[in-house]
Amino acid sequence: MTGVQKIEHAHLAVQNLEEATAFFKDAVGLVELCEEDGTIYFGCGLDSNYDLAISDGGTGVRHFAVRVPDVETIEKYEATLEKENVACSRTDGDEPNQEYGVRFSLPTGIDMEFVSVSDRNYRHEVDPAKDRSPIAPIDLDHITLRLLDVQPNAVFLQDVLDFHISDVRETSQGFWRQAFTRFGDYHHDIAMFSGSNRDETLHHLAFTMRDIGHLKTFCDTVAAAGFEVEVGIGRHNAGSNLFIYVRGPGGNRYEFCAEAATLDNSTATAYEDRTSIDQVSAWGGIHAPKSFKSEGS
Amino acid sequence: MTGVQKIEHAHLAVQNLEEATAFFKDAVGLVELCEEDGTIYFGCGLDSNYDLAISDGGTGVRHFAVRVPDVETIEKYEATLEKENVACSRTDGDEPNQEYGVRFSLPTGIDMEFVSVSDRNYRHEVDPAKDRSPIAPIDLDHITLRLLDVQPNAVFLQDVLDFHISDVRETSQGFWRQAFTRFGDYHHDIAMFSGSNRDETLHHLAFTMRDIGHLKTFCDTVAAAGFEVEVGIGRHNAGSNLFIYVRGPGGNRYEFCAEAATLDNSTATAYEDRTSIDQVSAWGGIHAPKSFKSEGS
Amino acid sequence: MTGVQKIEHAHLAVQNLEEATAFFKDAVGLVELCEEDGTIYFGCGLDSNYDLAISDGGTGVRHFAVRVPDVETIEKYEATLEKENVACSRTDGDEPNQEYGVRFSLPTGIDMEFVSVSDRNYRHEVDPAKDRSPIAPIDLDHITLRLLDVQPNAVFLQDVLDFHISDVRETSQGFWRQAFTRFGDYHHDIAMFSGSNRDETLHHLAFTMRDIGHLKTFCDTVAAAGFEVEVGIGRHNAGSNLFIYVRGPGGNRYEFCAEAATLDNSTATAYEDRTSIDQVSAWGGIHAPKSFKSEGS
Amino acid sequence: MTGVQKIEHAHLAVQNLEEATAFFKDAVGLVELCEEDGTIYFGCGLDSNYDLAISDGGTGVRHFAVRVPDVETIEKYEATLEKENVACSRTDGDEPNQEYGVRFSLPTGIDMEFVSVSDRNYRHEVDPAKDRSPIAPIDLDHITLRLLDVQPNAVFLQDVLDFHISDVRETSQGFWRQAFTRFGDYHHDIAMFSGSNRDETLHHLAFTMRDIGHLKTFCDTVAAAGFEVEVGIGRHNAGSNLFIYVRGPGGNRYEFCAEAATLDNSTATAYEDRTSIDQVSAWGGIHAPKSFKSEGS
Repeated sequence: MTGVQKIEHAHLAVQNLEEATAFFKDAVGLVELCEEDGTIYFGCGLDSNYDLAISDGGTGVRHFAVRVPDVETIEKYEATLEKENVACSRTDGDEPNQEYGVRFSLPTGIDMEFVSVSDRNYRHEVDPAKDRSPIAPIDLDHITLRLLDVQPNAVFLQDVLDFHISDVRETSQGFWRQAFTRFGDYHHDIAMFSGSNRDETLHHLAFTMRDIGHLKTFCDTVAAAGFEVEVGIGRHNAGSNLFIYVRGPGGNRYEFCAEAATLDNSTATAYEDRTSIDQVSAWGGIHAPKSFKSEGS
Repeated sequence: MTGVQKIEHAHLAVQNLEEATAFFKDAVGLVELCEEDGTIYFGCGLDSNYDLAISDGGTGVRHFAVRVPDVETIEKYEATLEKENVACSRTDGDEPNQEYGVRFSLPTGIDMEFVSVSDRNYRHEVDPAKDRSPIAPIDLDHITLRLLDVQPNAVFLQDVLDFHISDVRETSQGFWRQAFTRFGDYHHDIAMFSGSNRDETLHHLAFTMRDIGHLKTFCDTVAAAGFEVEVGIGRHNAGSNLFIYVRGPGGNRYEFCAEAATLDNSTATAYEDRTSIDQVSAWGGIHAPKSFKSEGS
Repeated sequence: MTGVQKIEHAHLAVQNLEEATAFFKDAVGLVELCEEDGTIYFGCGLDSNYDLAISDGGTGVRHFAVRVPDVETIEKYEATLEKENVACSRTDGDEPNQEYGVRFSLPTGIDMEFVSVSDRNYRHEVDPAKDRSPIAPIDLDHITLRLLDVQPNAVFLQDVLDFHISDVRETSQGFWRQAFTRFGDYHHDIAMFSGSNRDETLHHLAFTMRDIGHLKTFCDTVAAAGFEVEVGIGRHNAGSNLFIYVRGPGGNRYEFCAEAATLDNSTATAYEDRTSIDQVSAWGGIHAPKSFKSEGS
Repeated sequence: MTGVQKIEHAHLAVQNLEEATAFFKDAVGLVELCEEDGTIYFGCGLDSNYDLAISDGGTGVRHFAVRVPDVETIEKYEATLEKENVACSRTDGDEPNQEYGVRFSLPTGIDMEFVSVSDRNYRHEVDPAKDRSPIAPIDLDHITLRLLDVQPNAVFLQDVLDFHISDVRETSQGFWRQAFTRFGDYHHDIAMFSGSNRDETLHHLAFTMRDIGHLKTFCDTVAAAGFEVEVGIGRHNAGSNLFIYVRGPGGNRYEFCAEAATLDNSTATAYEDRTSIDQVSAWGGIHAPKSFKSEGS
């Protein structure tokens, strides 16, 4: 999807490709675009680009991509990365609808891309893909990585790749528990939560819902399909977005959110002491289960 | 409010009349109609009848009323109650906008009325009371009593007063933990939860919200006013309604709900084994705090 | 669907069964329940009763039914009709899920039934029929007949069959242009608009939408399926409901509405002088095309 | 408000300052921030910047401003304008919460500014200004000028000031009837409609609503306050946004909209032949009154 959210797609590993595919098609309502070499590509159905790819084998992030408008921007970041001695490779045309791309690894080892895509038209809700469910998300929203060490990864995005850090939640000792970074105006395109398991790469992948009514209808549909909401509906403090979380059948956690805040380029990072992160909703009323804090994928 | 929900008003005791009044006017957005003898009367502002009265001194239910269309119906129930040797007294004109009424006690001692009211016009949302907040509830929804013994009170409503029992949640030993009773088509006008404290009369008093968007805006407003949601947003199993709960400053709990189910007169009572009532939302995702189950007022 | 809206189903004639079927399945999202003798039965998918039947051949109303809770009520109305010398016949078990029924003709000749149905459970939105679309209506809402003479038909419902007349719109000469009648608490189960063509029987058949968000998503879906909204989104004066109208491919008009008012049994009929009925929305902003006033089916 | 919509504020002339003030405070729900030299400043109440200023005397645009993140950007555009021989002047600190600013005239003579503002925090809906109405818009959305000649003004924004043109509606002779220009990702920050009256500068000023539910509640509130919706609720073709229009008491037209599309920098301009612009809604159903096309202010 064109627009404010700068994340373009994510490629995840799933434990059970068949169940995960059924989840994304039947419960989430995504459009299956194609399969290539065992990887299934899904879109939200308001443009023809892909938002999610899944492959069998494990859990967590294979790679994710941030969208830029053109090949010139990709070449600019390629040059920057090489200057910083970060290994990178071009992925031009490697994925469906992908025109240009450059791939590299974050300090912690997770693969990230900048890409440009071929469908840059804006969405018309009266003109969706034929098999898009009316309750499908409208876009990929953001990715929240789960990392041993949040700070160096967030600072890399900021110092090398023109990201801004919107919010940092740190312990009283200054350890960064959570960082929310943006590439444009959206409060967070790439967020990071600290974890203690070096095999985990993902806390959750988030999809954009239109509004609270969309979120409610989605909850009904997901429950009807036999899946359970892990936490929600609530409103987050950081980013102010409405949220629910669902553990998918393939082993990963997904957020479905709406009403996230937008910021200026020049808005300064807000630091918050968060030794405890028990309260997940600005309204109260949501008591997150232990799994939410202790489990990534 | 005319209509499907048959509860007409409730009179509650509050611990701090001033704070409770501020809560209902500023956070909940009700219209203050008048004060009589230390009792403050509030309406939802889409008709001129009152929905809530509060008085200083303690917590819980002073009385509540179910609406009937005319004095003939009141006289019918008066005769029925006298035949059953239930003491009752007429309360014609005793309260604002009240035309006729008959008051009596439920088996457990809580005072209940049947009333008819003077404003029986239907609501026009483009013609509210002048000082009604756009986020105010649209009606009183139901009352959930907290009682030592649910079953005799629910059966009294059914056998003597033409109520139907929609749902019963019972332990494996057949002890009724929860009963939901209706006077018309609405899933529950009077619900009852079992409690162990004989001084408690109320689990919560519920107000009707228009839809999920109304509920969300209300959460923002209540949080902005400094109050916390106790549980929610979720969707209940019994009645299928969307809900949030808020503990008011006067010591009572209030529910704000939407999308409750309606039933035929002839729909049979559904019995459900509910030795545990941990799961409060049909979606999952809501983990009620201990207070929700153990505290009434 | 159990509940407040007392209309249970309608059987319409359509000009093109195949196109009409595609409209109701793919655009409106109803569940096709079965086909019997060339008649196709659809449900809204939150219970197993049928809401709409269509048959090839013309346009307009074949019959419609109001729900009652049990066979005793059917027998009561059968006796009443016979006493009034209105011919009637029993339709017990004649249609899918129909337990008991009695059919007769309104003064103007349109066939009407009282029926009881086998599924009287209340709806759980997390437990819909497997192939129900998330944007399908939640219930049949009301029927608006188009008649040469509104008044005798409305008065028949009131005087013989226990209906109440909620609103009458009349010319300054006292000619009833529109009447809205209710069988229970819902503002109108059967409405009637005056027309000048004796072959027309229907102005529109209405379905209940959950809320304004549902209505909006439905507009997007209907437009995506290639159909056009005739009027809306607006809010009606009579009944205060939100509305859109769509002309279906089979030659009839359908309304999709939400937030209709409810009333007491004892609320008196409101008479309004409506020599002109140009303003269809209480907000303004909606300028109905000529077709809306001059064309029925 | 920080974010995606790049318009920061507009200063309009109104015919009746008192009535216009009452409209914006009581019906629209804006927060009155201050009065300076007969100009009244209003905000949407989710930050402390102003969104709208009104002054007595006529109708239409006094000036409007686009937000940039910092003084460096202002200086860059100041230099560009001087290079292009466009007269400009600094307005640093001239208006409430304005840090830096540069003012100049569009080719057609309407005054425009680039500004930076002091409150750049993102919005938290649980932390609004104390007197913000829950139905107030959440932001200023865009301005739609009414001009004799759309094309030179739109091209000036594109060629000199880094705007992109999202959509152009032209006659079959290539005359630009409408142009929608964006400064960032939002489909239109400054739109332009052609008019034939050289005294008119404004077709409408638009405010952002959260979602369709917000828009509906707003319609009810505006109608309750005695104002009429001119057109709506519908969904526009250009930008895909939901809309209503209201003529304010001071002589100008205001749009309240939601769900507008966002675009990449690199998305090409879409040209559409629109000799007729009768269909204002992508759903159909909306028949705009003549005033909508023929009257500006």
